[in-house]
Amino acid sequence: MAQILLTLSYDGTQFAGFQVQKNARTVQATVQDAIEQIFGERYPVVGCSRTDAGVHARDYKLTFFTDSGILCDRIPAALNAKLPYDVSVLGASVVPDDFHVRHDVYEKEYEYAICNTPYRDPFSRHTAYHFRQSLDEQLLARAAAHFVGKHDFRAFMASGSDVADTVRTVRSTSVERRGDWVYIRIAADGFLYNMVRIFVGTLLSCAQGKYSADSIPAIISSLDRKNAGATAPACGLYLNRVTYLPQKGDTHDR
Amino acid sequence: MAQILLTLSYDGTQFAGFQVQKNARTVQATVQDAIEQIFGERYPVVGCSRTDAGVHARDYKLTFFTDSGILCDRIPAALNAKLPYDVSVLGASVVPDDFHVRHDVYEKEYEYAICNTPYRDPFSRHTAYHFRQSLDEQLLARAAAHFVGKHDFRAFMASGSDVADTVRTVRSTSVERRGDWVYIRIAADGFLYNMVRIFVGTLLSCAQGKYSADSIPAIISSLDRKNAGATAPACGLYLNRVTYLPQKGDTHDR
Repeated sequence: MAQILLTLSYDGTQFAGFQVQKNARTVQATVQDAIEQIFGERYPVVGCSRTDAGVHARDYKLTFFTDSGILCDRIPAALNAKLPYDVSVLGASVVPDDFHVRHDVYEKEYEYAICNTPYRDPFSRHTAYHFRQSLDEQLLARAAAHFVGKHDFRAFMASGSDVADTVRTVRSTSVERRGDWVYIRIAADGFLYNMVRIFVGTLLSCAQGKYSADSIPAIISSLDRKNAGATAPACGLYLNRVTYLPQKGDTHDR
Repeated sequence: MAQILLTLSYDGTQFAGFQVQKNARTVQATVQDAIEQIFGERYPVVGCSRTDAGVHARDYKLTFFTDSGILCDRIPAALNAKLPYDVSVLGASVVPDDFHVRHDVYEKEYEYAICNTPYRDPFSRHTAYHFRQSLDEQLLARAAAHFVGKHDFRAFMASGSDVADTVRTVRSTSVERRGDWVYIRIAADGFLYNMVRIFVGTLLSCAQGKYSADSIPAIISSLDRKNAGATAPACGLYLNRVTYLPQKGDTHDR
């Protein structure tokens, strides 16, 4: 028996998120179907994160156990032959049996892509958020920097979530402009429900002058969702990178 | 009466090409519908080029005549409010009445986008061609350079086309790699049916070692379609730029 770690990339547009749901197309069920076709058995797969409907991933990690002797080198091409074109397996490796792909996450980084043009771009309508008004990336970066640190981020959690511990540690934020594109990145030990999208919505409100860039600490400490900005659309959001501590993430070929 | 020139960008994935066809969704009919909604009349529009089903455009030019007094500044936003998300108007200007958007083209540039990764990229499945085998962009550039000049390009025309004059002048070609992406560009005074896609297919055959990079002149002078490579898929192809001679393309605001 070996635990296999897969790295996936997927376009979330036509998925109702990662996690299996009745009567909905999900990444988890889609990958389980492909695994079943290749391995001849339906293995339960565990994912590193729930992602919402429409959210994308460039570096999604999931695991499953198998006693099949298939070589890891062969797994990506074999699964990709069975998977639809909006999800792709980029790598496979063996990880220790006690590795847990969600509990052992050290850090996740999300990226939010904004197409900042006066008129919308037909090519990124599902893969970026179109924001018409010219964005000042310096101002966005200044506002974003206030999120760094260990805080109770309850003001940045969608209502309806029943998580008990709302303290998270944001390790870094960055804002980068490349031509007409603006990329907002945030890395943390974990995220609350819709936290990144509310973070981005709040930054965009700062850009529009609704809040000052330096009002973020007061919004955080208010612990009140009503004080933060709107939830930015799912289409701009990417799970960009998931990291594990070296002793946990150690993999070996077979 | 004034002639209006529009610049469009469109994702060709869900269009059966530019030109109006019965029972098919086309860019021409889609734009005419939007114009009718804004101007209250159905004006015939003339396009700079036929593009095939699935082919994209970043700089498509079309014209129509109107006696409406609407300001050009207002036209893009007004039309975009009526257009579906896979086509966008980027600009509008008034051009002289005797300007012809197709006959007066000085040069068109096409770009072909290749995602050159071992495993497919879910985000570019409709907007680039996935080519697994690592491409040598130097070799592609060397092969591409042989196309420059005034030649009879009959060997690079899809069968079934009944164009009488198959001589075209290719002004420049280039191949650029940016990370995992390879971009092949070709600019000419005009193109035969499927010429760019056969050009790209032939370059890819060179990359695979089926032809040498220096066999292109012999393929051109054979005048025989059978000697050229396969037709590369439409999804990677972009009409990238259309230019007019200054006296023709002169525009004025109103």
